[in-house]
Amino acid sequence: MPVGTQGTVKAVEQRELEHLGARIILGNAYHLYLRPGTALIEQAGGLHRFIGWSGSLLTDSGGYQVFSLSDLRRIGEEGVQFKSHLDGSTHVFTPERVIDIERSLGSDIMMVLDECVPYPTDEAYASSSSALTIRWAERSRVRIDQTRPLYGSKQALFAIVQGSVFEQVREAAARQLSAMEFDGFAIGGLSVGEPADQMYRITELCTSILPEDRPRYLMGVGTPENILESIARGVDMFDCVLPTRNGRNAVFFTRSGKLNMRNAHHGADFRPVDAACSCYGCRSFTRAYIRHLFKAGEILALQLASMHNLTFYLQLVADARKAILDRRFGSWKETALKTLSAEEADES
Amino acid sequence: MPVGTQGTVKAVEQRELEHLGARIILGNAYHLYLRPGTALIEQAGGLHRFIGWSGSLLTDSGGYQVFSLSDLRRIGEEGVQFKSHLDGSTHVFTPERVIDIERSLGSDIMMVLDECVPYPTDEAYASSSSALTIRWAERSRVRIDQTRPLYGSKQALFAIVQGSVFEQVREAAARQLSAMEFDGFAIGGLSVGEPADQMYRITELCTSILPEDRPRYLMGVGTPENILESIARGVDMFDCVLPTRNGRNAVFFTRSGKLNMRNAHHGADFRPVDAACSCYGCRSFTRAYIRHLFKAGEILALQLASMHNLTFYLQLVADARKAILDRRFGSWKETALKTLSAEEADES
Repeated sequence: MPVGTQGTVKAVEQRELEHLGARIILGNAYHLYLRPGTALIEQAGGLHRFIGWSGSLLTDSGGYQVFSLSDLRRIGEEGVQFKSHLDGSTHVFTPERVIDIERSLGSDIMMVLDECVPYPTDEAYASSSSALTIRWAERSRVRIDQTRPLYGSKQALFAIVQGSVFEQVREAAARQLSAMEFDGFAIGGLSVGEPADQMYRITELCTSILPEDRPRYLMGVGTPENILESIARGVDMFDCVLPTRNGRNAVFFTRSGKLNMRNAHHGADFRPVDAACSCYGCRSFTRAYIRHLFKAGEILALQLASMHNLTFYLQLVADARKAILDRRFGSWKETALKTLSAEEADES
Repeated sequence: MPVGTQGTVKAVEQRELEHLGARIILGNAYHLYLRPGTALIEQAGGLHRFIGWSGSLLTDSGGYQVFSLSDLRRIGEEGVQFKSHLDGSTHVFTPERVIDIERSLGSDIMMVLDECVPYPTDEAYASSSSALTIRWAERSRVRIDQTRPLYGSKQALFAIVQGSVFEQVREAAARQLSAMEFDGFAIGGLSVGEPADQMYRITELCTSILPEDRPRYLMGVGTPENILESIARGVDMFDCVLPTRNGRNAVFFTRSGKLNMRNAHHGADFRPVDAACSCYGCRSFTRAYIRHLFKAGEILALQLASMHNLTFYLQLVADARKAILDRRFGSWKETALKTLSAEEADES
């Protein structure tokens, strides 16, 4: 899922997202609640209509943003009080309030409010925080049944498994949440600084418990390698800012590793970034030109890089999906990882 | 002509420019000479190929930029010495050197090196400077005949009439340059701070002298009103950063005046910016959404505004052209100016 935090995938037009085959994008309840506000989005007829997006929308609850962006948060049983990173104003998110916000947004998939625990943390905190996140998930479920979609179309609700890198905490959370009625399950609180092997271990533990007939969504992950390894462990859905954010920093993903288009050795290279890529930039422009655009601070550089990287990510998971259906994912993945691991070749 | 100073029209893809019907865009010899440099552009096979643009290209000589952007310039009979605004390095532009640069760029229309005199200035300075610009134009003509296009296609050369707001100086310049062999003639040094009526007076004086069978190009002008008034006075070509630069500042041009999309009263307005406009943004998004994008600092705002304003400008001159061919330009212009003059309505 390309990330459209504030109601736009940065530097990419909605029609281009459609053209790239993106069928679902992310929005963020925290950001959209603060600006432009849910009242306006309700007036517009929901987030789909407000941003002119006819594909699907998943809205993150804002739990992660409250803990990463806002100041002076105070967390309690009821919910979390925080100050806006925009103007310092004070707000309270409860599980119920977040469901109400996501009803206003009208997203196709709503995420429950959770506490995203930073890494590292101790097991006692991870455990009590996970228990709170589970109680919040339960309250979210109750709220769902008390409310209705505002725009006619069904809204799914996903729970989030927390518990840092502690297996017992994660296992308990996955079991308890699996026993409740959720449309899908997310694994949160990973890719927050822990080593990759811990991320994979916890992911595998969670997917071994979470129901196979519901989507499993690994939040905020990650590199192409992370995604393939997590697909191998049973994950179905991903969101990540890497393709667009790294793109804006001149990093282009390719099957044979990453290329940094600011590097001098691309300066007189008149090949496309990736001859195998079908994106607008790769069909139309050279590395030399794209490097010039980055050096000159031109907006077109950000547009081309974002489109290219989304093309790459969407093609990567489309290929993974096809390999799974063809029952050759394991061998396909090994080959893909070998070429992807050349990723630092360019960075020297 | 949309302005693509550094080899890109800011925030607008080349394929979109084609789609908008732009048949010629501007590049800037000063900027492109400094970065990425003419050696690289020669290696790429010229500016068209470097930037992936199959339409026409006009390259400004850099005269204006030397005088507006660079420090410590020293002007003499031979040319102008200046320090790069990028790194402070010292460079010399002579009329001959600029022709050589424009040969390297391979633009379809090359501009001669000129001295762009700031406003206000005294008649003595304007007169001696104009005489220098004319001598430089003569040397540019000589250099053209000593050199050849590098990429096979013909390159036209335009002279530039200077002389500030002094009629005698402008008249002498227009007469002397008209007597030389140029493919077209530009009127430079206007829209630099002088009152609009002076700009129109000088423009009309110049076009009354410059040959009717050659394109007359008013450089760096201007507002929609400026353009219509100058067409009425015989101008054929314009370039201006207004549509893209003002667009990036949230100003949208429409037939019924300008709209600033940052203004609060657009906040809950779910109409398109201009229901009569065919651009992507007007077909797809509301004023409320576009205002949100500007408030949130999103790149899509810059893309949509730039596309819209270029659509507006290109349609305006297409309509003017049609009105001329239909022999109803005068009445068409009066009607157009009346609605355009509502331009401050939104700004209150």
